[in-house]
Amino acid sequence: MKYIFGVDIGGTTIKIGLFNEELEVISKTSIPTNVSDSGKYIASEITKKLETILEVNNVQNSEVIGVGLGIPGPVKNNFVEQCPNIKWNNLDVKEQFKKCLPNHYIIESGNDANVAALGELSVMGNEYSDIVLITLGTGVGGGVIIDGEIHEGNSGFGGEIGHIPLDEEYKFKCGCGNIGCIETVASANGLVRITNYHKDNDTRTILKDVTAKSIFEAAKDNDEFALEMVKRYTKKLVKLIATLSVVLDPCAYIIGGGVSQAGNILLEHIKNEYKENISFTKLKETKFYIAKLGNDAGIYGAAKLIKNKTR
Amino acid sequence: MKYIFGVDIGGTTIKIGLFNEELEVISKTSIPTNVSDSGKYIASEITKKLETILEVNNVQNSEVIGVGLGIPGPVKNNFVEQCPNIKWNNLDVKEQFKKCLPNHYIIESGNDANVAALGELSVMGNEYSDIVLITLGTGVGGGVIIDGEIHEGNSGFGGEIGHIPLDEEYKFKCGCGNIGCIETVASANGLVRITNYHKDNDTRTILKDVTAKSIFEAAKDNDEFALEMVKRYTKKLVKLIATLSVVLDPCAYIIGGGVSQAGNILLEHIKNEYKENISFTKLKETKFYIAKLGNDAGIYGAAKLIKNKTR
Repeated sequence: MKYIFGVDIGGTTIKIGLFNEELEVISKTSIPTNVSDSGKYIASEITKKLETILEVNNVQNSEVIGVGLGIPGPVKNNFVEQCPNIKWNNLDVKEQFKKCLPNHYIIESGNDANVAALGELSVMGNEYSDIVLITLGTGVGGGVIIDGEIHEGNSGFGGEIGHIPLDEEYKFKCGCGNIGCIETVASANGLVRITNYHKDNDTRTILKDVTAKSIFEAAKDNDEFALEMVKRYTKKLVKLIATLSVVLDPCAYIIGGGVSQAGNILLEHIKNEYKENISFTKLKETKFYIAKLGNDAGIYGAAKLIKNKTR
Repeated sequence: MKYIFGVDIGGTTIKIGLFNEELEVISKTSIPTNVSDSGKYIASEITKKLETILEVNNVQNSEVIGVGLGIPGPVKNNFVEQCPNIKWNNLDVKEQFKKCLPNHYIIESGNDANVAALGELSVMGNEYSDIVLITLGTGVGGGVIIDGEIHEGNSGFGGEIGHIPLDEEYKFKCGCGNIGCIETVASANGLVRITNYHKDNDTRTILKDVTAKSIFEAAKDNDEFALEMVKRYTKKLVKLIATLSVVLDPCAYIIGGGVSQAGNILLEHIKNEYKENISFTKLKETKFYIAKLGNDAGIYGAAKLIKNKTR
């Protein structure tokens, strides 16, 4: 038997999965992220944990193909210039892990959003090779997969779709410093911002605490104001999707992140708004799915990074 | 010696170039496009012309590697579903040309904007492999090159960047039926539209007939109103570029089409506005160039399609 490790490094937690060659998960675990001293202990602490996992699962080192790594910042050819979340600067990820891991391990890394997209791809049918994962959480993250591989871009900023300047209506300020980035309106926080913006001038509302979840729940109960907010929100989100369709033209979009828990009501709003707004008939055929893997997308995708290397 | 044909099929004219293996042009010519009977004579008329070119240049059929073709509509894996400009419908381009051309010819086709991008790439240094060609003419065309190859997308709409819904300010109607597509403001026509929009409320203007050319010329002469229009125009164009940077993150943008004849004044405005507006330091390093090949980009790119196949 052959095995692959998928590791998803986050700012507070590192998730680790042991997979077989069919990318079925054998064991899942996590350790806290130690960011002290510029994150220099991260590689060795992961290595220690991997050894324990092998022991517990009765797997020999020689049976392991390699370790895939998702990293919470831009990655280009396994190089991280700046990753504030885990305090890495100008770090060659492959070199760093080679120092700790057995020689025969294949090591590959990628940006966590891109790696998550690869994870979602790994549980889709073989007919899909060009997809975009759109993660609707605090911000809007993106992972672009072309021909089954991550599109990193020239400097690792491929798929940083949250910062497309698509809003000129609300003009909210983005964390990046700009005004009108799509994530200011199309993230979970964006839905809350839009709702708060309209709430005070509206007498209909029954919403008490405004969260993405409460808005979608009220919308499901046919609350008129909440439904209008969901519509306004979806309009913004579909602007982003329409943009990606005329640049990348993927075969499918996978919607992930907290907002995606709204499920079918979100998906139906997106599909309807998209069909209405995209003017090219052929593009109306693009598929939409809710992400399947949730927080595990990272470890699946990290393992897939290694599997792709063995094709 | 080995030779390649590059053919750029337009709605009224078909441009044909004979190239050597180093993609140096040996001879250039053109024939009118015969769109009668659903464009069924196009392949045979091109073939006839190619035979004449070989004869005139004393090249043997056996010395020809193949024929690359640029087509004025979406192309996916050499299949054209709809191309109103030359009346093609559901046409397998490779099959169509195989019927006319010698058996050993490699045949490859692509959308003309994408093929033009490949052409511009072919005259750039080897350090470039990910570029976007932005063509500023009647509309805004785009050609996306990733890893030295055209990105067609799932249904041939990759790089249809003119239809990104980036304008909420002027709300001009686009030819596609939508409101606010970036080409309504960032094309040559867009510059004219923006200028006409502001002209009547401005007493400064010295512009008589408003064309993209006259506006840029007045701006070069430091006409205050024209300069303001160029700034407003560049702001829109840079919104498009900033969008592409956080999706594709190419190493360079090539600016082509009629507006690009403004040259340095355009390039400087773009570079300044881009540096001011892009919040990620690493992305500020992206390069900008004016297209070099003009109307010949199509035949160069078509020839490069074949050269890529022989790598």
